[in-house]
Amino acid sequence: MSQSARERILDAALDLFNRDGAANVTTNHIAAALGMSPGNLYYHYRNKAEIVRALFARITAAWATNYALPAGGAPSIALMERMVAGNFAIQAQYRFFFRDLTLLLNADSELASSYRSNRDSGIANTRQLIAAFVAGGILRPFASDAELYDLSDLLWLVGDFWLVFRDSGGAPFDDAEMARGIRLFHRLLTPHLTGHTS
Amino acid sequence: MSQSARERILDAALDLFNRDGAANVTTNHIAAALGMSPGNLYYHYRNKAEIVRALFARITAAWATNYALPAGGAPSIALMERMVAGNFAIQAQYRFFFRDLTLLLNADSELASSYRSNRDSGIANTRQLIAAFVAGGILRPFASDAELYDLSDLLWLVGDFWLVFRDSGGAPFDDAEMARGIRLFHRLLTPHLTGHTS
Repeated sequence: MSQSARERILDAALDLFNRDGAANVTTNHIAAALGMSPGNLYYHYRNKAEIVRALFARITAAWATNYALPAGGAPSIALMERMVAGNFAIQAQYRFFFRDLTLLLNADSELASSYRSNRDSGIANTRQLIAAFVAGGILRPFASDAELYDLSDLLWLVGDFWLVFRDSGGAPFDDAEMARGIRLFHRLLTPHLTGHTS
Repeated sequence: MSQSARERILDAALDLFNRDGAANVTTNHIAAALGMSPGNLYYHYRNKAEIVRALFARITAAWATNYALPAGGAPSIALMERMVAGNFAIQAQYRFFFRDLTLLLNADSELASSYRSNRDSGIANTRQLIAAFVAGGILRPFASDAELYDLSDLLWLVGDFWLVFRDSGGAPFDDAEMARGIRLFHRLLTPHLTGHTS
């Protein structure tokens, strides 16, 4: 029951944050949207920062599922592209977080720390995945670690900012935009492919 | 005299916006930083949105200078890289704008419209520049317009979001970070170079 109230608060907050931007939404707005008293909301979450952190916990849980390698399966480019598509879907669902990233991180050092350790381990995983593709003969060897790291950074720029780039340009982030983002991802990999894509 | 007060207001606002984020700075904060009465500031700028628009006008003026092709000179990859470096320097100077982009655009439809028409023409210019490099034998011909447009979008992702990517990761955006961004730019172009770089 209490758990369910907490989830309903997060769902309502997410809708309002996505629509109006987190900076323009107060806990009173969220309570009003739920027909709940501010005191009742406060019982579950003491302030907006706690709500944002709880939503970020949902994002990291969704990422963990999205990026889990299938048991016993070898990584493939197709798998990597499904992961990219999954990431775009997560970003679209929680778009306020990616749009307002700097503001949210600057407002809450605990959130910033959690975001950064999550990103650091994600970047490390990406580099390992690229190295696994090289070891598996899918990608050509890189001339240097710097070249491999740069490819990883470019993939991250697409993954982290394609939604913000497109929607700050005024385009609604729909399936066609996601497909274009996946195509960009593929363009980055293409020069490095050996031609063995299994 | 009046012009100079307007410029001093913009300088003070820029410092505060870069330090605290535009959402956390009021016109009263800006007036206080200048030892100016709120009424006096209001005489020059009616609200924060007008100040942000005036700062964006400075950004577009800086971009116009940065991206001007030298009279009679042919475009070169080195010139393009100097333009990227110049863009990073402009972003570093006005970093609040790029960090808080979505929030600022959603708060002011006039600013959003001006930002978008500026970006649209910038993207069109980038595509033309790439096409000029192909015509000049510096880049290999593209298999399709889509491939050329995708390269242009990737270059824009680096140009627009490298600073935000790095500083949301907690790294101060210094000269070394700018040099890494320029290197990413070069990585994107490398697979397309013919080897004739003049």
